[in-house]
Amino acid sequence: MLGTCIENVRKTVPLVHNITNYVTVNDVANVLLACGGSPIMSDEPEDVADITAICGGLNINIGTLNQRSIEAMFVAGRKANELNHQLLLDPVGAGASALRTNTAVKLMKELRFDVIRGNISEIKTLAQGSGTTKGVDADVADAVTEETLDEAVAFVKKFSEKTGSIVAITGAIDLVADKDTCYVIRNGRPEMGKITGTGCQLSGMMTAFLVANPENKLEAAAAAVCTMGLAGEIGWSRMQEGDGNSTYRNRIIDAIYNMDKETLEKGAKYEVR
Amino acid sequence: MLGTCIENVRKTVPLVHNITNYVTVNDVANVLLACGGSPIMSDEPEDVADITAICGGLNINIGTLNQRSIEAMFVAGRKANELNHQLLLDPVGAGASALRTNTAVKLMKELRFDVIRGNISEIKTLAQGSGTTKGVDADVADAVTEETLDEAVAFVKKFSEKTGSIVAITGAIDLVADKDTCYVIRNGRPEMGKITGTGCQLSGMMTAFLVANPENKLEAAAAAVCTMGLAGEIGWSRMQEGDGNSTYRNRIIDAIYNMDKETLEKGAKYEVR
Amino acid sequence: MLGTCIENVRKTVPLVHNITNYVTVNDVANVLLACGGSPIMSDEPEDVADITAICGGLNINIGTLNQRSIEAMFVAGRKANELNHQLLLDPVGAGASALRTNTAVKLMKELRFDVIRGNISEIKTLAQGSGTTKGVDADVADAVTEETLDEAVAFVKKFSEKTGSIVAITGAIDLVADKDTCYVIRNGRPEMGKITGTGCQLSGMMTAFLVANPENKLEAAAAAVCTMGLAGEIGWSRMQEGDGNSTYRNRIIDAIYNMDKETLEKGAKYEVR
Repeated sequence: MLGTCIENVRKTVPLVHNITNYVTVNDVANVLLACGGSPIMSDEPEDVADITAICGGLNINIGTLNQRSIEAMFVAGRKANELNHQLLLDPVGAGASALRTNTAVKLMKELRFDVIRGNISEIKTLAQGSGTTKGVDADVADAVTEETLDEAVAFVKKFSEKTGSIVAITGAIDLVADKDTCYVIRNGRPEMGKITGTGCQLSGMMTAFLVANPENKLEAAAAAVCTMGLAGEIGWSRMQEGDGNSTYRNRIIDAIYNMDKETLEKGAKYEVR
Repeated sequence: MLGTCIENVRKTVPLVHNITNYVTVNDVANVLLACGGSPIMSDEPEDVADITAICGGLNINIGTLNQRSIEAMFVAGRKANELNHQLLLDPVGAGASALRTNTAVKLMKELRFDVIRGNISEIKTLAQGSGTTKGVDADVADAVTEETLDEAVAFVKKFSEKTGSIVAITGAIDLVADKDTCYVIRNGRPEMGKITGTGCQLSGMMTAFLVANPENKLEAAAAAVCTMGLAGEIGWSRMQEGDGNSTYRNRIIDAIYNMDKETLEKGAKYEVR
Repeated sequence: MLGTCIENVRKTVPLVHNITNYVTVNDVANVLLACGGSPIMSDEPEDVADITAICGGLNINIGTLNQRSIEAMFVAGRKANELNHQLLLDPVGAGASALRTNTAVKLMKELRFDVIRGNISEIKTLAQGSGTTKGVDADVADAVTEETLDEAVAFVKKFSEKTGSIVAITGAIDLVADKDTCYVIRNGRPEMGKITGTGCQLSGMMTAFLVANPENKLEAAAAAVCTMGLAGEIGWSRMQEGDGNSTYRNRIIDAIYNMDKETLEKGAKYEVR
């Protein structure tokens, strides 16, 4: 049950190391606290192995990457793999620049990710690979809609099989899949796209869900996606006249803070394919 | 008409690359989303040319500059010039340190800025130049008030003529000028100074306005200033007992989110000199 | 009187240079503005001496430290000492990694801090020292409670005597001490731990209090702690159904913005030992 997943986060207070962009980092920290986890940030190569070692999971987000933080991603990622910690990749902007695409592809090659989470464009970029990397067939539509759902589900399962990672594609309809099973999730609101970093926030929170539910990683990843989307719905229902995206940001984090097992169970809208 | 300028932003969703300080970057991103634009941040020299290339404008803000981000400013700025993208300089802290002053002066020398936006102190510093740079006569008062308005208008026009850039000086009274024409704007509230980064937010938003209105850059810059100031007025009108600068920050961004052509047209307080 | 301390901040608007982590930097800036101070951030070695020189105090926070910012901490710290500016150390994560512990210990060795502020775990780490550094006896409980208060008060006074710095340990009960006198402060709420960076915010604000009250540094540090805790109480009293940690963050900063001498005098809960 998805509700158990968030309950486990609140019970175990998982410590999550984030190497993440400086645009949305404060919200990532507050979302991790809101869901019951605990955040630490560090992106200095000399510091990250120690920090990762005391955590249960590592969230690597390549937005605002630089040469120092890229090195830190590999150092920390290797340590996380060595310690069998949960490891998540958020390939922000893969496809938008050669450095981002190549960094994401190289991270996937050298590290073993439990989850890769991005939008359809980023995931398609990774599926195609870069340079000499041979990718899977990524001939899928650029948005996951009811019309393109069948092919998108097939694509995400195939990409999961190839990578050995759970793959989460978020958008109007969210997909969370391993090679056999795909959660199709219909929580959320379009206005969430008007807030910077809801995807980054989700990646941080999802890492905490993975750490707290190591035996049910697919379900945990799906529960994090439902939590974020449902918080977007609850937050929106509390908006008043004159409110906008800044207040909406606060309301969503507030809704995560107040999310409990029952609310999540009742509000999660998904089917399993 | 100023209202058309924001309407064009909402219609075209301009993508803006920001090399900006890490203090206020999240608010810059949310303000860009609030006004109808779309933000990307990157300050790694190896990444910035690609990122700038997919955008319509580049906002260079030198707050919390470092050797890496300075290099990125030049790399991205040259690419933006090459592609004839809108390019804006926000010389945060020019005059406060040699590195900031020299960096701003060097950026102005090597790059062609569509707009330079700062407070009177920063703009005076740039006008005086640094080291061997010979500046214009910056013998103008340290604040733009009704008493000093005539000389300030003359100064800003002269500095615009010298630089070839539109120059925006923001403060109690805002000035936005090219060599011939100066918008004198009286929107805003003094309490906006109690929020970190309203200037940075304005620079990000102004870049989006420029991208969406390339044929009317002076008007677009003035429209962005009026939008920010008017949002400050609207946000303040929604403050309740016990609210302070943190809630005010949210209310201002919310007001930008809800700003439409009619509200802006009706609320903009300016004269053209 | 503690109330006079905040009044002096509002009267003198102290400029505070912060070398601080990018997770909570925006909140640090807004809290400094809320209490009546003025923030500047810079962490580039070539920039920091100039920036520190124009300020009255320097707040060094080692969260998200990197090689560049570490160098900047030493350069700026030496300049602050040279100019007899107020200098504060916030050893975020000391004990969590070798780099953080060693950096904090080295900063304490090479610089003269007016105040060291951290949680009990961080302060114990510093008291024990690292590597060849011989520390004081840090055999004190891991939390300051009514049961462990006597030994904690003795420990903090001893550590203050050894370092020559005022030492502030914040937690459920806060201690602010020099070698002879310890303020035991019981303001605040446990929910403040669910917001990222209330400690960082306090360090920034405390630096402003020190700059504005150079003749009463112990009292100024205690006043800053009471202001933060009391703001946490006032902010909580304004929370409504459905609100969570993101709104709580805003409410706390708002409460600091509205804090005056009388409110602080009346609400401060402390005893002197």
